[in-house]
Amino acid sequence: MINDFFFFNPVKIYFGENQIQNLPKEAKQFGKKILLVYGGQSIRSTGLYNIITDLLNEFTIVELGGVEPNPDVSIVRKGAEICKMESIELLIAVGGGSVIDASKWIAAAACSDYDAWDFFCKKSTVDDALPLITVPTMAATGSEMNHGGVISNKVELKKIGRSSPLLFPKASFLNPKFTYSVGKYQTVCGSVDIISHIIEVYFNNQQSLEMLDSIMESLIKTVIKNTVIAIDEPSNYEARANLMWAASWAINGFINGPVKQGWNCHTIEHELSARYGITHGHGLAIIIPRWIRYCYTEENKNVYMKFAKNVLEIDIPDNQLPDIICTELEKLFFCTFGLSSNLKDLNIPSEELPQIADAVCGDGIIHGFAELDNKDVLAILKMCY
Amino acid sequence: MINDFFFFNPVKIYFGENQIQNLPKEAKQFGKKILLVYGGQSIRSTGLYNIITDLLNEFTIVELGGVEPNPDVSIVRKGAEICKMESIELLIAVGGGSVIDASKWIAAAACSDYDAWDFFCKKSTVDDALPLITVPTMAATGSEMNHGGVISNKVELKKIGRSSPLLFPKASFLNPKFTYSVGKYQTVCGSVDIISHIIEVYFNNQQSLEMLDSIMESLIKTVIKNTVIAIDEPSNYEARANLMWAASWAINGFINGPVKQGWNCHTIEHELSARYGITHGHGLAIIIPRWIRYCYTEENKNVYMKFAKNVLEIDIPDNQLPDIICTELEKLFFCTFGLSSNLKDLNIPSEELPQIADAVCGDGIIHGFAELDNKDVLAILKMCY
Repeated sequence: MINDFFFFNPVKIYFGENQIQNLPKEAKQFGKKILLVYGGQSIRSTGLYNIITDLLNEFTIVELGGVEPNPDVSIVRKGAEICKMESIELLIAVGGGSVIDASKWIAAAACSDYDAWDFFCKKSTVDDALPLITVPTMAATGSEMNHGGVISNKVELKKIGRSSPLLFPKASFLNPKFTYSVGKYQTVCGSVDIISHIIEVYFNNQQSLEMLDSIMESLIKTVIKNTVIAIDEPSNYEARANLMWAASWAINGFINGPVKQGWNCHTIEHELSARYGITHGHGLAIIIPRWIRYCYTEENKNVYMKFAKNVLEIDIPDNQLPDIICTELEKLFFCTFGLSSNLKDLNIPSEELPQIADAVCGDGIIHGFAELDNKDVLAILKMCY
Repeated sequence: MINDFFFFNPVKIYFGENQIQNLPKEAKQFGKKILLVYGGQSIRSTGLYNIITDLLNEFTIVELGGVEPNPDVSIVRKGAEICKMESIELLIAVGGGSVIDASKWIAAAACSDYDAWDFFCKKSTVDDALPLITVPTMAATGSEMNHGGVISNKVELKKIGRSSPLLFPKASFLNPKFTYSVGKYQTVCGSVDIISHIIEVYFNNQQSLEMLDSIMESLIKTVIKNTVIAIDEPSNYEARANLMWAASWAINGFINGPVKQGWNCHTIEHELSARYGITHGHGLAIIIPRWIRYCYTEENKNVYMKFAKNVLEIDIPDNQLPDIICTELEKLFFCTFGLSSNLKDLNIPSEELPQIADAVCGDGIIHGFAELDNKDVLAILKMCY
């Protein structure tokens, strides 16, 4: 049975080298007072900070820099307070997924009397939000073209993603050149994140549409091929453009159609990022191949066969499907992309794996491609060690 | 060089068997007074008319039935007059691409003091439009998810497509079951139309993104495979769902990215439809293979190589590329799909080919994948005869 579904994505995308010129025109629709949100100093060293502030010289700009990877709810609280005090009318997020995600929740918290964390423990809902424009500087989370965002809570050791249709950016400016300065490590981590978004849809137990399966296969192959090019040639426009546009389409709702993401891997990885601050894409690279090997059953082998044939383009005997797919992905992530291959190298203490597994599962199991309890998650974590 | 581009598509899509239940909720946002636009009697015999009027029993419905294939500007004028006289607040189009296209231009003409044809001869622009909701009953034109529409003028023997962002439907309800009753001829003509929309982007001289090329290849293969299934099993939900969703994505702006459609084939076909009322998809099936053969040059052979390898999945020596691709498409359209293969069988008089070619080119040449003057178009038409 093919599930009914809803698709809606109203984000205006300006893609290309010269599109940032349209930023003032888009911003003007929402007001004169802008909160400019960004991360560290890289947007200054690349010149992007100057480009944007020059373009917006007729607006009043308040700044919120210093948004960190795995952004904490404290920065959301701080941003919301500034918005309220300064009567901010529009947010402009310039940076990677962390900056955009933080900005989305600042936009919501600025219009709410609740504490920002209440959105994540389901004590409050998003009833209104300030408008948001994004200028992504990485190809990874796809946050520039969807309505979700992930926030961490360092006190409670939690990292949670939530969404609301009110959090779609009004417009996003995607210039592949803005990603030229992203180093090899962040580039490959971004690519793993893109691939993971597709894999969490592709590996599922619901019936998809052949059209979407085949588009997902195209996207994964595009990302792999262009990551390899971008590693060698960081300023290859074509490669960066393919990665940037693929990132948006991997998680803007389109590839899902009748299928919901399972989020097995993300749920496990978020626990690791929340506790140890590891880079999201790196955590996923370590988890995905082992999760794929662990979850294989006679019932779901069709997905494995399809993936082997259409993505890896190799013939594998049935009984070796999980092993060889795992090995091929390990080769890709750890040899070709050059990421270290296990949790030990990320300084995660082995004695904490059981409590990580318990925390991942909470009181029960995590749903998705596989239904995993804490014993399953612990087994997967041990494969990752 | 990869061109900059803009992407925006705000159409809400309700896809699936039970989604039509959401029609009143969507309609309610726009008012109480609806113009229901449809074609012939088929929506009555399939029960769709009753489903929709039952769902909308709290609204006031005015009806405009009888929209014909290749809809004439006279029906647009008539619809606009009704909208003005009856103070219509919302249009609901139930039918194929002709019904949806006519409704789009009724929505625009209802808000204009100009004559409806003025939009097409560029005497006026769309400054406002009534909201439109669509319920497509065919997989073909993709009009349910874009902002363009094609209208004929039987007096002037013209058929012209125009667009405006104001003509995006507010919501479209795509139920694959609504297409079960579409007969073989209309099904395959619809599929050729879908394929043509992709081919008019894929065969181009601008640099695309590899990601989009590979998605276009996936889409064409999906359409071919599922058309064959739908011919044998008209009530195969999965096949109809793939065709329906592929139709929307073939021409909603996504596959273009940095590339503009050339519209060579559509420009030629529109002249035939305008003069002889032939079915659009059938005309395209006759033109496309011969156009592909005619336009081959040493400079554009990469497109042919890519198409042969990735869509047809055959190895062809360079010097046979145009002939074999043409032959393969002829086999597909005329043998597998069962369409008659030439303009003679459609009762188009051979002695009128020169004046058709002149009319296609107007005062000069048609631009696109190839730059064609009237001699080129005549040569292609003769290949089609």
